[in-house]
Amino acid sequence: MALIGGGPGAFIGPIHRLAAEMDGRIALVAGAFSSDPARSREGGMQYGIDPDRAYPDFATMLASERDRIDGIDMVAVVTPNHAHFAAATAALKAGFAVMSDKPATTTLTDARALAEVVASTDRPYALSYTYSGYPLVREGRARIAAGALGSVRRVMVDYPQGWLAAPLERGANKQAAWRVDPASSGVGGCIGDIGVHAFHLAEFMTGLRVTELLADLGTVVEGRALDDDVAVLLRFEGGVRGVLTASQVATGERNGLTIRIYGEKAGMVWRQEQPDRLDILHSDARSETIWGGGDALGVDARVSSRTPGGHPEGYLEAFANLYRDFADLIQGGAAPLLPGIDAGIRSMAFIEAAVAASRNCAGWIKFEG
Amino acid sequence: MALIGGGPGAFIGPIHRLAAEMDGRIALVAGAFSSDPARSREGGMQYGIDPDRAYPDFATMLASERDRIDGIDMVAVVTPNHAHFAAATAALKAGFAVMSDKPATTTLTDARALAEVVASTDRPYALSYTYSGYPLVREGRARIAAGALGSVRRVMVDYPQGWLAAPLERGANKQAAWRVDPASSGVGGCIGDIGVHAFHLAEFMTGLRVTELLADLGTVVEGRALDDDVAVLLRFEGGVRGVLTASQVATGERNGLTIRIYGEKAGMVWRQEQPDRLDILHSDARSETIWGGGDALGVDARVSSRTPGGHPEGYLEAFANLYRDFADLIQGGAAPLLPGIDAGIRSMAFIEAAVAASRNCAGWIKFEG
Amino acid sequence: MALIGGGPGAFIGPIHRLAAEMDGRIALVAGAFSSDPARSREGGMQYGIDPDRAYPDFATMLASERDRIDGIDMVAVVTPNHAHFAAATAALKAGFAVMSDKPATTTLTDARALAEVVASTDRPYALSYTYSGYPLVREGRARIAAGALGSVRRVMVDYPQGWLAAPLERGANKQAAWRVDPASSGVGGCIGDIGVHAFHLAEFMTGLRVTELLADLGTVVEGRALDDDVAVLLRFEGGVRGVLTASQVATGERNGLTIRIYGEKAGMVWRQEQPDRLDILHSDARSETIWGGGDALGVDARVSSRTPGGHPEGYLEAFANLYRDFADLIQGGAAPLLPGIDAGIRSMAFIEAAVAASRNCAGWIKFEG
Amino acid sequence: MALIGGGPGAFIGPIHRLAAEMDGRIALVAGAFSSDPARSREGGMQYGIDPDRAYPDFATMLASERDRIDGIDMVAVVTPNHAHFAAATAALKAGFAVMSDKPATTTLTDARALAEVVASTDRPYALSYTYSGYPLVREGRARIAAGALGSVRRVMVDYPQGWLAAPLERGANKQAAWRVDPASSGVGGCIGDIGVHAFHLAEFMTGLRVTELLADLGTVVEGRALDDDVAVLLRFEGGVRGVLTASQVATGERNGLTIRIYGEKAGMVWRQEQPDRLDILHSDARSETIWGGGDALGVDARVSSRTPGGHPEGYLEAFANLYRDFADLIQGGAAPLLPGIDAGIRSMAFIEAAVAASRNCAGWIKFEG
Repeated sequence: MALIGGGPGAFIGPIHRLAAEMDGRIALVAGAFSSDPARSREGGMQYGIDPDRAYPDFATMLASERDRIDGIDMVAVVTPNHAHFAAATAALKAGFAVMSDKPATTTLTDARALAEVVASTDRPYALSYTYSGYPLVREGRARIAAGALGSVRRVMVDYPQGWLAAPLERGANKQAAWRVDPASSGVGGCIGDIGVHAFHLAEFMTGLRVTELLADLGTVVEGRALDDDVAVLLRFEGGVRGVLTASQVATGERNGLTIRIYGEKAGMVWRQEQPDRLDILHSDARSETIWGGGDALGVDARVSSRTPGGHPEGYLEAFANLYRDFADLIQGGAAPLLPGIDAGIRSMAFIEAAVAASRNCAGWIKFEG
Repeated sequence: MALIGGGPGAFIGPIHRLAAEMDGRIALVAGAFSSDPARSREGGMQYGIDPDRAYPDFATMLASERDRIDGIDMVAVVTPNHAHFAAATAALKAGFAVMSDKPATTTLTDARALAEVVASTDRPYALSYTYSGYPLVREGRARIAAGALGSVRRVMVDYPQGWLAAPLERGANKQAAWRVDPASSGVGGCIGDIGVHAFHLAEFMTGLRVTELLADLGTVVEGRALDDDVAVLLRFEGGVRGVLTASQVATGERNGLTIRIYGEKAGMVWRQEQPDRLDILHSDARSETIWGGGDALGVDARVSSRTPGGHPEGYLEAFANLYRDFADLIQGGAAPLLPGIDAGIRSMAFIEAAVAASRNCAGWIKFEG
Repeated sequence: MALIGGGPGAFIGPIHRLAAEMDGRIALVAGAFSSDPARSREGGMQYGIDPDRAYPDFATMLASERDRIDGIDMVAVVTPNHAHFAAATAALKAGFAVMSDKPATTTLTDARALAEVVASTDRPYALSYTYSGYPLVREGRARIAAGALGSVRRVMVDYPQGWLAAPLERGANKQAAWRVDPASSGVGGCIGDIGVHAFHLAEFMTGLRVTELLADLGTVVEGRALDDDVAVLLRFEGGVRGVLTASQVATGERNGLTIRIYGEKAGMVWRQEQPDRLDILHSDARSETIWGGGDALGVDARVSSRTPGGHPEGYLEAFANLYRDFADLIQGGAAPLLPGIDAGIRSMAFIEAAVAASRNCAGWIKFEG
Repeated sequence: MALIGGGPGAFIGPIHRLAAEMDGRIALVAGAFSSDPARSREGGMQYGIDPDRAYPDFATMLASERDRIDGIDMVAVVTPNHAHFAAATAALKAGFAVMSDKPATTTLTDARALAEVVASTDRPYALSYTYSGYPLVREGRARIAAGALGSVRRVMVDYPQGWLAAPLERGANKQAAWRVDPASSGVGGCIGDIGVHAFHLAEFMTGLRVTELLADLGTVVEGRALDDDVAVLLRFEGGVRGVLTASQVATGERNGLTIRIYGEKAGMVWRQEQPDRLDILHSDARSETIWGGGDALGVDARVSSRTPGGHPEGYLEAFANLYRDFADLIQGGAAPLLPGIDAGIRSMAFIEAAVAASRNCAGWIKFEG
């Protein structure tokens, strides 16, 4: 594996590496870690790879690695958002499989173009919607598909964070700076950074597509060009009602992604911050908790677990599950749960619809993708 | 105290009695428990009062009790919603203090008319927004007023119930039947039954008024004339953002009213189902839990508690706090935390605005009251 | 009802009154609130009773009330422990039913003597082991009796409090002072004040009797004459293993009584500080929560609830359930769940065995009672 | 790194590998995975290592790897308990660093002999007391050392599991079989398998040594030769009181290790099943939760975290922290938090004292080590 992006100071690069390597099937051996050649070299040293394989830019890397007998099979794209499209496209065209950090691109148009590249190159392509890698999320999805809730009626997904409650971007916080800058992030701030995670999770678990939305995107911290607080009313296929809220100014919240899904027969709750439990709410005021690693789990959750019950698994293991699926894909297997370019198109369509709906106060907007 | 309403099969009548009598300052001695005289007599027997004081209708009761030397001071109005206005008006005009079950009336016009009656009769009038009686809600309100969160930026209030997920109104469930019938409930279903509790709680704790809203009221169970699932986007004074959601078809939920308030400096969470704790979320990923009955409480919460820390108080004690305040009012004291007719006007304005906004898809609607 | 004890500054007197009156079947009308006549009068004023019925001592009260046509039926004994025996004996002999604060007496000998008085007078006698009044405790007991856990194997009961972590008895804290004074409390400190609650709860829920114990009673705060921290190893009939721990120096704990019971088939957990839930732990890493007020409850819990699911009930309602049972007894009904003098004998036997076992380092001690 | 043990069907071997490799500083390249050469080869294939380095026995491996230019630096001993001593001794004497699964040996005598080998060879030696690798455990230890609780008074550590509630050893469960067999496990069953984890955690967090104990070891499932349920009363230096309980027949429990430590000023709680939080209980009924990854953490916890707050880390990351420390040791650094042979001696002394105390009903036993 090679990284594009993830140089010194990056958060998500080392996470990708750790997740990719966790099961011993993938190893980081190369990278174009920064568009600045010196920083890319520095990145290579930090990751402990062969200095010859810390490339000054991704074009050079793709060409060089293609020629090596021990060259890479896959690339992970972990740059800020605006560079995802070009890097993924180049890597696919050079014949490599691509795991891209979400979002796939910064526009819906680009996402559709990328889908064509994926189709024409026929290379594996996946998006790191990490939360879909959690065993209990997969358990919930399987149970809903099997009818555990009856027909779904109502979906509430909420994703509060507080780390941007203060204007960190005015200081030296690189993570904050690019996220509030449309040039790096695209048209969505909070909606694009974390709202899409909530959106993907809702569609992933329910198996239902959102068809219409009404959005209220706001900017709470003065001076920001992008939204940092989001409320979106949803309508899924079949008229199922939903609400998606997300915020990066919810002071004191860490990473509180929570989904609640209500059906005719029962409800279901999953909370990212205690990820090894899934709660089923029965109509007789009895709730049932399915714990990670236990015998009550179905096959999708079991194969996504590494430890026995009561030995908590977390974010890194969820992420590693995406890479495990991806390794299966590369080796010719199937990975039906792994988000691909379709999820990327859906997310970009969602972001653009939400931004449009919010700008024009146009009420409900239908969307496809 | 006398009850108007609360006859055989009623839920809230016995709750009012128990709450009113908890501190030994008020006693139920009379009632017009039903508009059916036979059922009113039966109610009187169930409550164990003097049979002579179980009246066939409230007009008779008000006249008779006024003439007794040991007559009542106050009336609690616990009928279905549509009868609140007439009963409260009559009682006030007859010189009695009135504790009314919420909502005050079924229309904003009536609420304003009732406000004039309250003003002209100068009798104590209160509304049972029970959740404002919880000690930790009062603690939260006091802390926000004292600046614990910095300026408030975002208010998330959610009130899920599941008991109407099935069409109980088609069976013998009296509680369900009147709630889904516009003739008894007014124009709001879920929004009027529980949405207003969430609304009142949000204004009560933050001290901020909602100025604008956008609503998505839905009817999930087929055949209902009123909404049973609600999402409302809010704007409070000063542009503070908010989301209010409520549902009576959230299968498996009991009475999950939860409020989260985020300010510049910190966040705050209170959950009705574990009411003796208030969580303060600090920006350094440290959260603080203030427990009921403890030394960390301020005066408003202390005087609203009856037991030492760790001996949980619940819904009945919260309700009794409203009656304790009301007894203070009757005895000439002040009760600044007790919801009065202003809260009633606010709630009716909220319901009507939400219904209008949802019907016309008109986008944001400003409202006053 | 009359109180013996519960004068100015008492904690448990007002609690008894509130609990007794909650359901409108019992009313406080008389009392010998203190052994000091002036304080008894002051108590009478605080409770708002007829001044003539605030008696200077309990002998006078019992004699006077027996002669009144509207005299009391029952007495609640709420003095410090050392006075329970004499007061209860006198009241029973005077023909009154007695609800006594636990413990029944301060010695096992006295408890057995009291049992003879109860038998010979044939008057209702009950002990306020409050925690047995919680609906979900009763639910747990019924489920265990019905075999939900299979045969019970292991019982863990823990009761941490922190309020005596500092030497409050050296200040003006009356509650602390009598509890650490053997003359008022008897031979047990923490073991007698809260350890017996844990003991009773364990026997009540499992339906099993403790037959043997080994105890480690300690005094953590210097200068105290009685234990303030307790660990007791238990053996129940059939060799079932158990551990009982209690402390009043567990800084920061409020009233954390928790019981966990493990059987061949499943486990069970109940925590007093969130009393409206009972957890059943299944062997497939699935746990089930039974919530208060819901349709999953059996009859014992249902008749012990006053509110629908999700409207939390707490300590006062649990206490009121004991009085409700007691009212049934007075009116000639049965109250099989209500702790009586047998529970009092068991508790005194437990305290004396634990104190003996701890003093002599004698290893395991068998006990009966 | 090479494994000794961890062949097909083993649980802990793959966990060691994953933990060791997580940070990219250690790689599994060799192993004597079983005492059966064919199974060792099979293990090598499963781990994906060079077949030449899957050795038929550990003696061969140690000799061969010493001769390789790219030979290993360290060995992880992951056999059943009875083989730990010989394998670790041989590896140390062959010049390798040793990470051993706990317990160090099966007797105190062996543990002391091993300590001499560690001293004479001067090679790094560590024991996988995994729970000491959790960031919040390290945070708690640091806070206690800094006086956050005042002087410690009471330590309650409890470790319930339920997986051996049924006699799995009679079936094909290899994990169960060796644990209940004294020939593989040593004299302790539950006390040696998980009791020592609780013991180590208690000493690790408080910085206090246990000096005396009284034990009640029991066998609940018929036919077992070793204890499966444990209660131990503890006395730490300075007379600090403690209780350690552990069980493998607590039906429905997963891996519920929980420690509560009470000091003069405050209490502290950590629960393994939600490991990213540490609760501080203040005496004013205010509790404070320190969350993983946040700014409130001290240096020991920070350097033990890989993700930002709200992205849960779990058991594997805790385990990896031990390996990270171990890598520091190998590279000549310090690792003051890493359990070494001293912890092994302490644990063996604890097990032997507990077994002796329980067998003879001898009351309190002092112990050293």
